[in-house]
Amino acid sequence: MSEINYPAGTKPKAVLPRKTATKKKRTLKIAAGNRGMDFEAELNDTNAYYKEKGLAVFNKRPTPINIVKVDYTRGAKITEAYFETQSTTDYNGVYKGYYIDFEAKSIHGKTSFPLSNIPKQQIEHLKAVLAQGGIGFFLIDIVPLEKVYILPASYIIDFYEKRERASIPLTEFPLHGKEVPQKYRPRYDFLPLIDELFLK
Amino acid sequence: MSEINYPAGTKPKAVLPRKTATKKKRTLKIAAGNRGMDFEAELNDTNAYYKEKGLAVFNKRPTPINIVKVDYTRGAKITEAYFETQSTTDYNGVYKGYYIDFEAKSIHGKTSFPLSNIPKQQIEHLKAVLAQGGIGFFLIDIVPLEKVYILPASYIIDFYEKRERASIPLTEFPLHGKEVPQKYRPRYDFLPLIDELFLK
Repeated sequence: MSEINYPAGTKPKAVLPRKTATKKKRTLKIAAGNRGMDFEAELNDTNAYYKEKGLAVFNKRPTPINIVKVDYTRGAKITEAYFETQSTTDYNGVYKGYYIDFEAKSIHGKTSFPLSNIPKQQIEHLKAVLAQGGIGFFLIDIVPLEKVYILPASYIIDFYEKRERASIPLTEFPLHGKEVPQKYRPRYDFLPLIDELFLK
Repeated sequence: MSEINYPAGTKPKAVLPRKTATKKKRTLKIAAGNRGMDFEAELNDTNAYYKEKGLAVFNKRPTPINIVKVDYTRGAKITEAYFETQSTTDYNGVYKGYYIDFEAKSIHGKTSFPLSNIPKQQIEHLKAVLAQGGIGFFLIDIVPLEKVYILPASYIIDFYEKRERASIPLTEFPLHGKEVPQKYRPRYDFLPLIDELFLK
């Protein structure tokens, strides 16, 4: 395919259906770090699809960086900077006029979701968002089961604050949330589930 | 004041009313770069106030950075990174359940607002936000006049797309937007103007 100079936007997708390609990746038991990035990349594609089709506008918040030194001799090259703790969630945007806020997590166990995955600031941020009438949720990728769930932030916050357990049993997921359909495009079609969970 | 060890959150504010201090800075004709940072710092304070009082949740989006090299020998130090073009506006959040999106600009002329201040991506982003029923606006600090205006994004987008002029005459500002009251705290009280301009 690389020898043909397709005009912008007309290049046909690879013959191998993307879903199969990803399925192969999953059974190869890729490294924890990679899986998280993989999920993030696919979520970004899903959001790009929603934006393209005029369905919703969701953006990933850039990682906050504390910039200490910049070298301006040839353009602008940052030569010293440090990661800052994020005080919010990773994604937010607008859907049908509603403020939507969500966090994506990948887990590798098959039985429970450890609450240690969620920094306190994210809980505080989501509480403040819900208090203002915003819609908040988590998209949780259970890697070994190849399933993604959408769970309302209210449920997670409640579990977190009760502190009765250090993790949420995965058996609770279908009871309090919904499984996200996986498609060719969009990869994780969570948008209609926002209507089901919050707008009905 | 520095000799007293105040418990967290109890340190009284400086005796000099902040408004006067800022007024002095303004008449000193500080560098363009600094003034923009000053406005941003004060907006961040205003947003912190709104969050603190449970009135709204607005956050500044971190500058997107493309990280190339990280040195992990002592913690994590980013040693090579580059600034990326921002594809969205600087601020967004939730107020009374509505999605709020805004951009802050500082200008130094007294007669007009050059449209070159606004990258195309910001216009596209705001159009997409408005199409989804979100609320969008600009907060424009006219430095020499010591006034800040809130202007609906729809007005700015319309002006931008008509391309009849390269800049918006400042005389249009009070006709299409509102002047933001300046106080001790919050510094720029734009929140009630959101109700006036968009929710009535």
